[in-house]
Amino acid sequence: MIVSVGSIGIDTTRTPFKTAKDVLGGAATYSSLAASFFERTHIVGVIGGDFPKEYMKIFKERFGLSGLKIVKDGKTFRYDSTFDYSLSTRKTNSTDLNVLAGFEPKIPSDLKKAEYVYLGNNDPEQNILALKQFSNPKLSVCDTIDLWINTKKDTVIEMMGKVDVTVLNDEEIRLLTKQSSLIKAARDVLGWGSNSVIIKKGEHGTLLFSKDSVFPAPGFPLEDVVDPTGAGDSFGGGFIGHMARSKKADFNTMKEAVIYGNVMGSFAVEDFSINKFLKIKLEDIEKRYEKYRNIVSF
Amino acid sequence: MIVSVGSIGIDTTRTPFKTAKDVLGGAATYSSLAASFFERTHIVGVIGGDFPKEYMKIFKERFGLSGLKIVKDGKTFRYDSTFDYSLSTRKTNSTDLNVLAGFEPKIPSDLKKAEYVYLGNNDPEQNILALKQFSNPKLSVCDTIDLWINTKKDTVIEMMGKVDVTVLNDEEIRLLTKQSSLIKAARDVLGWGSNSVIIKKGEHGTLLFSKDSVFPAPGFPLEDVVDPTGAGDSFGGGFIGHMARSKKADFNTMKEAVIYGNVMGSFAVEDFSINKFLKIKLEDIEKRYEKYRNIVSF
Repeated sequence: MIVSVGSIGIDTTRTPFKTAKDVLGGAATYSSLAASFFERTHIVGVIGGDFPKEYMKIFKERFGLSGLKIVKDGKTFRYDSTFDYSLSTRKTNSTDLNVLAGFEPKIPSDLKKAEYVYLGNNDPEQNILALKQFSNPKLSVCDTIDLWINTKKDTVIEMMGKVDVTVLNDEEIRLLTKQSSLIKAARDVLGWGSNSVIIKKGEHGTLLFSKDSVFPAPGFPLEDVVDPTGAGDSFGGGFIGHMARSKKADFNTMKEAVIYGNVMGSFAVEDFSINKFLKIKLEDIEKRYEKYRNIVSF
Repeated sequence: MIVSVGSIGIDTTRTPFKTAKDVLGGAATYSSLAASFFERTHIVGVIGGDFPKEYMKIFKERFGLSGLKIVKDGKTFRYDSTFDYSLSTRKTNSTDLNVLAGFEPKIPSDLKKAEYVYLGNNDPEQNILALKQFSNPKLSVCDTIDLWINTKKDTVIEMMGKVDVTVLNDEEIRLLTKQSSLIKAARDVLGWGSNSVIIKKGEHGTLLFSKDSVFPAPGFPLEDVVDPTGAGDSFGGGFIGHMARSKKADFNTMKEAVIYGNVMGSFAVEDFSINKFLKIKLEDIEKRYEKYRNIVSF
């Protein structure tokens, strides 16, 4: 059982090619969807009474919902952003936290025994409180963003010390550690207590570190990126999804999980919102994993 | 036999940690040194009467010098630059072309039968004229820089159509093709007549493209970069070096050559100037190649 804790939102995503208005978004939406291909996944988050029925239908079909809080008279988190022509830089137009403001994740009793816990880029204090509610997770993973590194750095570091795997992007880990070398940066995070660190580098792939090992993986080469939203969260979901179905935690399994994470990230960006995930099956994922293995071998 | 055509210089390289004054540099110096571990390499370039004896000693030990022009009363090309704290951005302090200005590479008759030709980031007109002088090269490789893309774009494109392999970095190929997708950018270059394209992405590794295949390779993870000067040229030298000793030109051999290129680039940046190349042997290169293969396998 996987539990994914984090934001659920309604996005408006503008690119120079198309605008997708009021589409399903949020870190936990992407990570849970990506994970759900591999193992039963429960989403823990909050939405308002305005959450569209069609999106709730997707949630009901894909996730366990005992941890989903619905604030009937509240509004769902909304995020409006614009990508530049290269689709690599995003400008935030508006962020309406709405029911997400001050959300304190409560893990229902049926989920407390979850073995695989994914903590999205939430307030690190809330992530720490959420993690405490699980009785004995086999593998816990956390993500973070620059907002928390800038405002609650000590708590971010404390959170990283409490999880098995820290996932973050190259800019964030450099901001956090003030190291320009990613290897030194990863070593700092390992020193704070995380057993493994994964650095996400967008199109350049990922770096996985544990105490004595490193695994660099290139990105899956994609010709057309439609909407980069959710790539990192989908990576996280694919990673914990494969870890959960494998029931192993050795470095080799983590390497495979990193590739599955890259594969899920590559699917996520091929369409707006979570649309691509509605069109693929586990066999498409396995096919792309094998293709990836073939192209990187030498 | 490998012939490498390009600049030979005396560099002053300033980093926040140390300044290396009047050290051996130049694209052809790096590419020839990297290639020379694999196969007999001849350097074609020009130096002045001021070229230090100690550097000439290295040249004599490592290269064939029939294509080295010495302008007794001229001064060697000089380049002075400063890296920022991250060692990723370089500011040019001064460029004195000296004898390099208007240099027209003349291939001596004993080198015209060379099977492996590496054309550095020279004026594309000069590269085209140099290539014409070879009777029947098995494999020709060219590099370029933003200066030529900005001032002689048509000639750059013409040059790329005449070689087997075009090597350039991600910023350069985006500048050249106006494509943000590196896959589309590579396809444009292939369309101009190059059989293969290699995109260098610094610490993020490389992408090798031929008509129907792509090979993404992550960078060799390095904890300490001392001086990034010459990494790309050393990549090129390692690439053509392995191609030359393999005597094959299939995609699998090119994949291996790309990894040897990455390995040579990783050695180059571990010390100032070409100093690291003076300390390693072919067995160190093979060892790092095997280490690379181990860490990227999954």
